[in-house]
Amino acid sequence: MKNNIFSFFTPKNNEYFVLLSEMADAALMTSELTLECIEAQTYDEVVEYFTKIRLQKQKGVALQEKIIEELHNTFITPFDREDINSLAKNLKDTIDHISSSAKRIMLYTPKSMPESSRALARLVKECAETIKLAVDKLDNLKKNPQEISDLCKKLEELENKSDEVYENFLVTLFKNEKDPIEIIKLNDILHELEHATDDAERVGKIIGTIVVKYA
Amino acid sequence: MKNNIFSFFTPKNNEYFVLLSEMADAALMTSELTLECIEAQTYDEVVEYFTKIRLQKQKGVALQEKIIEELHNTFITPFDREDINSLAKNLKDTIDHISSSAKRIMLYTPKSMPESSRALARLVKECAETIKLAVDKLDNLKKNPQEISDLCKKLEELENKSDEVYENFLVTLFKNEKDPIEIIKLNDILHELEHATDDAERVGKIIGTIVVKYA
Amino acid sequence: MKNNIFSFFTPKNNEYFVLLSEMADAALMTSELTLECIEAQTYDEVVEYFTKIRLQKQKGVALQEKIIEELHNTFITPFDREDINSLAKNLKDTIDHISSSAKRIMLYTPKSMPESSRALARLVKECAETIKLAVDKLDNLKKNPQEISDLCKKLEELENKSDEVYENFLVTLFKNEKDPIEIIKLNDILHELEHATDDAERVGKIIGTIVVKYA
Repeated sequence: MKNNIFSFFTPKNNEYFVLLSEMADAALMTSELTLECIEAQTYDEVVEYFTKIRLQKQKGVALQEKIIEELHNTFITPFDREDINSLAKNLKDTIDHISSSAKRIMLYTPKSMPESSRALARLVKECAETIKLAVDKLDNLKKNPQEISDLCKKLEELENKSDEVYENFLVTLFKNEKDPIEIIKLNDILHELEHATDDAERVGKIIGTIVVKYA
Repeated sequence: MKNNIFSFFTPKNNEYFVLLSEMADAALMTSELTLECIEAQTYDEVVEYFTKIRLQKQKGVALQEKIIEELHNTFITPFDREDINSLAKNLKDTIDHISSSAKRIMLYTPKSMPESSRALARLVKECAETIKLAVDKLDNLKKNPQEISDLCKKLEELENKSDEVYENFLVTLFKNEKDPIEIIKLNDILHELEHATDDAERVGKIIGTIVVKYA
Repeated sequence: MKNNIFSFFTPKNNEYFVLLSEMADAALMTSELTLECIEAQTYDEVVEYFTKIRLQKQKGVALQEKIIEELHNTFITPFDREDINSLAKNLKDTIDHISSSAKRIMLYTPKSMPESSRALARLVKECAETIKLAVDKLDNLKKNPQEISDLCKKLEELENKSDEVYENFLVTLFKNEKDPIEIIKLNDILHELEHATDDAERVGKIIGTIVVKYA
């Protein structure tokens, strides 16, 4: 492409893939740190993990802003502007909901974290891994559209599994926990994780749409 | 229209009306089953109703996906693509919030369902009936724009009434219910129903917009 | 501009600025009344303030509808239609969340309002003042883009401060309040205020976008 008229636009296009991939990295890091935060043994550890999560969240915000700025400054985009915009927004929402869950652990200091919170956090991490794989294939869409579609399908399945884990958690919580304040705290914490899988599924839907349009 | 160049596009246009009408059917069925779920006497009955509701919800999801797919594959749409997309999204949200309310009855097994939950579910059902009437008039918009506008206006009124019922429920709940866990459960269940009427009102707003643009 | 062909469109453009400015007024009034509602000493006073707030909310809804109507009826808009639409939607959401907080004070009648609720309501009021200043500069964008950008930046800072106040409130609430019903009530009331600052920040983001595109 070098030395021809299109080289002016090409770097801009690559730029989107780099920024989206970095957002996926931030989502993955946030999910890993949150899993560690849930398994932390002391309050100091929780605070330490959350401090790292906050950095990832800020990175996510900055990356989304950069993508929006790019969208205003470039004429040619690799996909529909609206799809890039939605993708960035939903990646940011994913990061927000995961980090919000960790923040609530720090703020609420529940007596203990139930096994279902670990199960849910592991599903969230699997969502983030799947997103990372799918986003990193976007710049070579035509080569493996089926592979990307399968990853989007997987995000849908992970969301369904997460729904099930969250619902079983609720049933157990209301059956076994007699302290209403613990119910409020734990429900709030796990609800954020469940939200994150909804966001991840939406990320999958948008990527699926891009595949249909451009592959 | 047959045997001319436009006949290629016409079936596609009819397709949207059919799919949207089927989504409205699913919303109506979900609302009827939820009302029965609230009035169920045994846990087995609740589970039975929810199993049927889940099917309607899945139908709603599949219909929305089909509409999105159509939007990617057709050049000519009967209304702005964005309006069809929003309409499908908000119909799906309506179904989701209604079914989510029924699911919570099954998961939480509250001691008893208050009269206000029945009143709210009846309003939700009325919303779904109104949506069904309005959506089914969309394919003949020019014939009766005023009638459709009146139905949209009615959705707004139903939402206002639902707000009132929900608020009175909250006042009574906090005044009479002394068990905080019951408060959490019932508030959560009725909140989903109230959300459904917000979605229904939004459906009305979008239809109202379409009437203004195309009638 | 008078007596030439463009004069037909010009009044329409001014119209948007007037309507948006009136929405900002409604948001500011709602925030002031809500602060007074929090400081009210009797239930009658709370009801009185909420009655005034409801009027502002209705005004906000009517103004948003008028803006949407204008967008359907005019060909030329001072900014991207989508930005005007988002701006109106988020101004309405701001008003909704503030008024919803005041309504919950009236419905729940908590034992007492914590100092943090006043701190949060003052930040919300500062958000509304900042929005008003920014919106009123939109019709003369090119004259002072930096000033508007600074106001958008300030909305972001106010949202961060509000987050902090809300989080400290949660920590204190779960530490000191032993009545779970009071926890539910107060958390719900302050959560709406915190939501309002999110909306206000989004208003700032949209205005920031407009500045980048048109200044």
